[in-house]
Amino acid sequence: MALLILGHPQLGKSIANKAIIKEIQKNNSEIEIRNLGELYPDFNINAEEEQKALLRHETVILQYPLYWYNMPAILKHWFDVVFEHQFAYGSKGDKLKGKKLLTSVTVGSLEKEYKPFGKHNFRTTEFFKNIEQTAYFAQMTFLDPMFFHGTSAVDGFTEDEIKERAKRYANLLLSSVV
Amino acid sequence: MALLILGHPQLGKSIANKAIIKEIQKNNSEIEIRNLGELYPDFNINAEEEQKALLRHETVILQYPLYWYNMPAILKHWFDVVFEHQFAYGSKGDKLKGKKLLTSVTVGSLEKEYKPFGKHNFRTTEFFKNIEQTAYFAQMTFLDPMFFHGTSAVDGFTEDEIKERAKRYANLLLSSVV
Repeated sequence: MALLILGHPQLGKSIANKAIIKEIQKNNSEIEIRNLGELYPDFNINAEEEQKALLRHETVILQYPLYWYNMPAILKHWFDVVFEHQFAYGSKGDKLKGKKLLTSVTVGSLEKEYKPFGKHNFRTTEFFKNIEQTAYFAQMTFLDPMFFHGTSAVDGFTEDEIKERAKRYANLLLSSVV
Repeated sequence: MALLILGHPQLGKSIANKAIIKEIQKNNSEIEIRNLGELYPDFNINAEEEQKALLRHETVILQYPLYWYNMPAILKHWFDVVFEHQFAYGSKGDKLKGKKLLTSVTVGSLEKEYKPFGKHNFRTTEFFKNIEQTAYFAQMTFLDPMFFHGTSAVDGFTEDEIKERAKRYANLLLSSVV
C-alpha cells in the first residue's frame, strides 16, 4: 500500500520514531517498512533492492528525525545511491514518475522555536526545499511535509507523554496516506 | 590558516573539485585539507580527530559537489558525528563560537536553471538554510555561500574548460578567506 523508508540511524535509541513505527505496524500491516539503520549499519546500501522496493509502491513515506536541520546521513546516502541516472532521472529515468512522496519528520524543539526570533530562526518548512526539488526532478508528486514537534525531554515532556503523542501522530500520518 | 573539509565521496572521479583542490594546494600550503571520502571510505568518522582539526583553525571551508540539492552523505555524517553536544552546542558547547563557516559548492547545471521556470525551480541559495542555521546554533559566523555553477559536461563544457574555470574559482575562493 505504501513504502516507509525509516531514516533513523539507531531506532533502539529513539523514543518518538520507535513509537510511531510501532503504532503503524499495529494498525496497518500493509505498509512496507525499510529500516535503513538496521539494514545498512555500515552504509553499504543495496541500490537494486531499494529500487525494487520503490517500484512496488505508489506512495513513499520518509520517516526520520531532524538532525542539524536536515536528514540523517543514512537517508541522504539512500538518495545518493538509489536515485540513479536512468532510474530517477535522465532520458529513460522515469521509474518514480507520478509516485507520491510524503516527508514525515520528528523535531526535538517546539514549533514556536522555528521562526524568526525563535531559537531556530527559520520556519520548519524552509529546510525541506532540497527534498521538494528532488521529488520534482524525479517527476514525483511532493506532498506537504508533516512534522511532529516536541520530541525532546529538554522541553519538559516525559517519555510517556512523547510516546502517547507519537501514537496520535502515527494515526494522523496513516490517515493522510490511506 | 584555514581548514578545508572536502566532502566529495570520490575525488578521483571528480573534475571540478579535484581541480579546485589542486589549485589551492599549489597556491596556498597553509590551508589544511581533510578529504573525508579518502579518510573515511567506510563512513567511520573519527569525531575526536575532526574536532581537534576544527580547534586548530578560525575559518572552516566546506568544499563539496551538490548532490540532490544537498550535501553528499559523507559530509552530512561529519556534521552528525562531529558537532556533538557540549562541543558545538549545549551549556558548555562553545568550541566553535566565533569561527567563520564558508560553504563552497560545485553545481552541475548553470545558474540560470536555478530559479522559477528554470530546470531546478529554486535559487541555489534556497538550499542552504540548513547549513546557515547549523552555523548559528554552533555560534559560528555564517559567510554567504560561494557557488561554482556549470561543472557538468552535459552543458557543453569540455573537461579542459571546466578545469580552467575551476582554477579561477579556486583563486576567488582563496582571496575570500585570506
